[in-house]
Amino acid sequence: MNSFKSFGSDNHSGVHPEILLAISVANEGHMPAYGGDPITSASIEQFRVTFKKDVEVFFVFTGTAANTLAIRACCRGFEAVVATTIAHINEDECGAPEFITGSKILGFAHENGKLPVSVIEKIRMAPDDPHRVLPKLVSITQATELGTIYTPDELRALTKAAHARGLLVHMDGARLANAAAYLGVELSALTTDVGIDVLSFGGTKNGLLCAEAVVFFQKDLAEAFAFMRKQSMQLASKMRYLSSQFLPYLGTDLWRKNALQANAMAIYLRRRLESIEGARCPWPTEANEVFAILPEPWSSHLQTTAPAYLWNASTGLLRFVCSFDTTEADVDRLFAKTP
Amino acid sequence: MNSFKSFGSDNHSGVHPEILLAISVANEGHMPAYGGDPITSASIEQFRVTFKKDVEVFFVFTGTAANTLAIRACCRGFEAVVATTIAHINEDECGAPEFITGSKILGFAHENGKLPVSVIEKIRMAPDDPHRVLPKLVSITQATELGTIYTPDELRALTKAAHARGLLVHMDGARLANAAAYLGVELSALTTDVGIDVLSFGGTKNGLLCAEAVVFFQKDLAEAFAFMRKQSMQLASKMRYLSSQFLPYLGTDLWRKNALQANAMAIYLRRRLESIEGARCPWPTEANEVFAILPEPWSSHLQTTAPAYLWNASTGLLRFVCSFDTTEADVDRLFAKTP
Amino acid sequence: MNSFKSFGSDNHSGVHPEILLAISVANEGHMPAYGGDPITSASIEQFRVTFKKDVEVFFVFTGTAANTLAIRACCRGFEAVVATTIAHINEDECGAPEFITGSKILGFAHENGKLPVSVIEKIRMAPDDPHRVLPKLVSITQATELGTIYTPDELRALTKAAHARGLLVHMDGARLANAAAYLGVELSALTTDVGIDVLSFGGTKNGLLCAEAVVFFQKDLAEAFAFMRKQSMQLASKMRYLSSQFLPYLGTDLWRKNALQANAMAIYLRRRLESIEGARCPWPTEANEVFAILPEPWSSHLQTTAPAYLWNASTGLLRFVCSFDTTEADVDRLFAKTP
Amino acid sequence: MNSFKSFGSDNHSGVHPEILLAISVANEGHMPAYGGDPITSASIEQFRVTFKKDVEVFFVFTGTAANTLAIRACCRGFEAVVATTIAHINEDECGAPEFITGSKILGFAHENGKLPVSVIEKIRMAPDDPHRVLPKLVSITQATELGTIYTPDELRALTKAAHARGLLVHMDGARLANAAAYLGVELSALTTDVGIDVLSFGGTKNGLLCAEAVVFFQKDLAEAFAFMRKQSMQLASKMRYLSSQFLPYLGTDLWRKNALQANAMAIYLRRRLESIEGARCPWPTEANEVFAILPEPWSSHLQTTAPAYLWNASTGLLRFVCSFDTTEADVDRLFAKTP
Repeated sequence: MNSFKSFGSDNHSGVHPEILLAISVANEGHMPAYGGDPITSASIEQFRVTFKKDVEVFFVFTGTAANTLAIRACCRGFEAVVATTIAHINEDECGAPEFITGSKILGFAHENGKLPVSVIEKIRMAPDDPHRVLPKLVSITQATELGTIYTPDELRALTKAAHARGLLVHMDGARLANAAAYLGVELSALTTDVGIDVLSFGGTKNGLLCAEAVVFFQKDLAEAFAFMRKQSMQLASKMRYLSSQFLPYLGTDLWRKNALQANAMAIYLRRRLESIEGARCPWPTEANEVFAILPEPWSSHLQTTAPAYLWNASTGLLRFVCSFDTTEADVDRLFAKTP
Repeated sequence: MNSFKSFGSDNHSGVHPEILLAISVANEGHMPAYGGDPITSASIEQFRVTFKKDVEVFFVFTGTAANTLAIRACCRGFEAVVATTIAHINEDECGAPEFITGSKILGFAHENGKLPVSVIEKIRMAPDDPHRVLPKLVSITQATELGTIYTPDELRALTKAAHARGLLVHMDGARLANAAAYLGVELSALTTDVGIDVLSFGGTKNGLLCAEAVVFFQKDLAEAFAFMRKQSMQLASKMRYLSSQFLPYLGTDLWRKNALQANAMAIYLRRRLESIEGARCPWPTEANEVFAILPEPWSSHLQTTAPAYLWNASTGLLRFVCSFDTTEADVDRLFAKTP
Repeated sequence: MNSFKSFGSDNHSGVHPEILLAISVANEGHMPAYGGDPITSASIEQFRVTFKKDVEVFFVFTGTAANTLAIRACCRGFEAVVATTIAHINEDECGAPEFITGSKILGFAHENGKLPVSVIEKIRMAPDDPHRVLPKLVSITQATELGTIYTPDELRALTKAAHARGLLVHMDGARLANAAAYLGVELSALTTDVGIDVLSFGGTKNGLLCAEAVVFFQKDLAEAFAFMRKQSMQLASKMRYLSSQFLPYLGTDLWRKNALQANAMAIYLRRRLESIEGARCPWPTEANEVFAILPEPWSSHLQTTAPAYLWNASTGLLRFVCSFDTTEADVDRLFAKTP
Repeated sequence: MNSFKSFGSDNHSGVHPEILLAISVANEGHMPAYGGDPITSASIEQFRVTFKKDVEVFFVFTGTAANTLAIRACCRGFEAVVATTIAHINEDECGAPEFITGSKILGFAHENGKLPVSVIEKIRMAPDDPHRVLPKLVSITQATELGTIYTPDELRALTKAAHARGLLVHMDGARLANAAAYLGVELSALTTDVGIDVLSFGGTKNGLLCAEAVVFFQKDLAEAFAFMRKQSMQLASKMRYLSSQFLPYLGTDLWRKNALQANAMAIYLRRRLESIEGARCPWPTEANEVFAILPEPWSSHLQTTAPAYLWNASTGLLRFVCSFDTTEADVDRLFAKTP
């Protein structure tokens, strides 16, 4: 039995016990299907409390689905998404956004993982030129794919620039919990308060069981979403098993507790990695991810002990991810033997 | 607390306790994501034992996804699906097959819910006429949407006719367990042994937690399915929570135990309904569904007590569905008061 | 050199000399591309005069494109099209509407080729039920696929019923000219005046060179159509060669002259066919098509002399189509030899 | 009457008289539709002679259609296209490839408009990783979007590298004629002889009337293309009006005559532009396009006299395109007045 924790991904960890408990509690008797049950209603209400707005909430199974369907809700086929080249939607979803929505993703260079405001300010908007796709939606990832975090001011600047040009703003919040935990703010402070239009709210990476939510801050964007979700194969019949998870997750601040632990372990891990002579971490560690280029024999040694994700094969850049259940002992064990 | 069982759908019931237990057991430590874990490997092996063939197995979240992706695996956009007009893929999936695959579904009249072999024998196949879509896949539902069941001989006749014309055969097995339980045969007897090419194997309606599987009996059809599943937003990162459910489900014949109970309760319910003077059940009750047209005041009375699904508003045809946890007492309660 | 006229399709005839002349005239010097030229502007103006409304007009290359893009303009993927089972969009476009738009076509039984108003009145509209596609657009064909013609009153009844239920109405006008010629009315009398929302206006079958137009009677439906046309590969760079054809076609009533000739020849042909003992024409001949079941040896004889389209292989039903350049002599030649 | 020639695009010119003549000749009597006519057969034979191979040929209406359908023939939705960032398919087709095929286009930096071989050699090919799209098709443009031309050796190196990695090669030959004319070689020397798998063969930009062809050098790639073309709305009913154009175009080397003239005028124009003090042409002029950054007041002056296409608004880079009917006098007229 391998009880060693993985640093390969926060998808390697399991489900938090309180979440499994919530699922067990939800497993009581018969209830209407497809979200007509009282647990789902309560869960949606919890989102409205947490996000301090009368948001529309739709549960889905995967982060790729949340992102792709958010795009479907906002864009027609000829309308395009503005994102960084390294955005998860651009690189890591096997082209699901293009395949499902027909929309093109326009990739731009990032700065420390973030989309520069200048991209939005300068992007060509030519509503009279049908030869090119028409930008319609800006998609940013919080925390970014590089483990960095947009501040509320940075978010506000992005949404302001986007809205000024008639663009909507989507946040891929697969690790939004980690961002809010790092900044010490409420989830609403990074979404409702800064003008996000639609959010992919992640759960799976932070201790949930295949549960994500698409959250609309503008009701009209959600008008037809029930149909889009079903037609996109993401309508759970036994919805309560998705929705129930968010009751303790949001209601008891489990999201923050889990994220704080993962974040803290990332900082702890980074310190240990940086103590290796010649190690280099190219970006600040703000969420639960540490990127590092390590000298040999350390690089090979760690890849044998506890494989990290090889982010860039040509530079040897590794990505270590900490989970909600990673402990200092787990980190220490990485360094128990010297290569 | 409403402890009354619903007859509206088998989606109204919850998850079987043994399944929740299997999920809890799977929730131990860290494991590789996306199906690289040992539980998923074991689960796939279990499918191979159960279906007595070296099948390829892919877990997905919903029945609509299983059906739609099976079509995607078999058909290019101009290739069509042959099914009954009342097939779930044709009526109840919000056009997901067309939207996701581009393929057209050709609907034909059913006989007691079943697709007549003559449809396959007579269907126009014109590989030189690009004006019409080209039939490629026959899709049948076992048990059918009307609660009837194809015998092994009927299935063999369909697959033989289909293969003779170069058509593949898909089985929507959302309630395959109920069919095998009714016939007293193994799951393989209705699939492997009769020439099914690809199966949507349902779990959710029979006590699982949002877990379905696409099972390929021809390896070459599965060649690119890993990419199709991811691009279609159905790749679970924490796969073990899907795959683990099938270990007891298939390994301990829980599928049969659950299905037998639901089937038996449908028979029991049917007898009680038929005892109402003037009641009429248009089709035989072979699986866990009872269709009935009831006289007033019984029809309204039951719709108030425990709403069934109104299958046809103009005729007043109701569909009652029994679940794995429906009991005789639950049925009796329907008739506790006379209207 | 085979100078014999075909009765297989009005696609077998060529281009009317006046149309070729218009193209030659348009071929003068350089002009802006993509519709920015004065000929296209003039042609669109001509449509506005002819249709007596400030319509939006977009030229495309094929009838399948006109129909499919009209659907794209009106329907989102989960919104469905209501049509007869024999509608060209349903049977003869190789699934282009489904493939390009994702929308499902709901096929209903026809009466003499026409969609009964009762279909619209009774169709299930359930905007709260995401399991089924949502009807959004009624599509009718004028003249119908069976060569019959909706009267203005019939059209008015259809659009009234549709609009009352929130449905838009599309007319597949591949042979609209034949219908207007038969009824002796203006094109506007069958479109603008009766509440059509969007029209596929055919040209090719009536003497044009691969030129069709999508005509919007509601401006807001056309809002994004320039992008949809380009993204659907139907934007002509040298647009003047499409648009110029409609100047004489509409401006000199060439459409009517051509259609009258084709219609008259169909009537003439029908009389000759009906003079064959045992011949049966199942539907009235109102446009340029004659459907007939002929006794042997006449059926085989004519299929050798001048093949008609075998509409139904099992009944031997043949479709004869007359063109703008069909003459009485051409018809007579069919009967020159007795089998 | 403005008889001034435009330098804005080769789409601004008209149709060559010999092409109009061929169309007139084709307009004789009735013929089978959809390509069953003898003119289309002869035209396809002409392609086989010209390309010195038993190619499969399909006529379509636009360059965007030719490119998009070539991609559809080669790629499934999760398979990707490798191209330069400035490829026409990536920038100027309103996302038609993504919308129609679902496939993603991976854009790479160009060198003088060309795709470097090293891109192909280094591109990540991970057939076991379903998180990313799988490269399948390399698409290059000849002449490039910047008016430069791949030599036969460069093409051979690209196809060799591609085939070695299991990739197919598509050539966007919207201006292939200009390339072959420049190099003084046959069309086959840049396609058949260097290993191209599928070609979009342009006609419209070089004097044809909305006529392009998709040419397959591997028969198996074309297996289902008749259905794909119809379902993609690109099947001409009166096919002879497309196919007939290629008879003189290829059969009398009109393609070369037209291209030579356009190319020569581009060289002539370039010399005149370079004679403006401070003018800069960033790339060699090999085909019929001249890119130039001009000093003021010349830049504004010429944009008033004969607007070129503003390729880059921030740098003021202009693109001048010469057509088959551009003359020295036309060029001289640009410089008739000094600003």
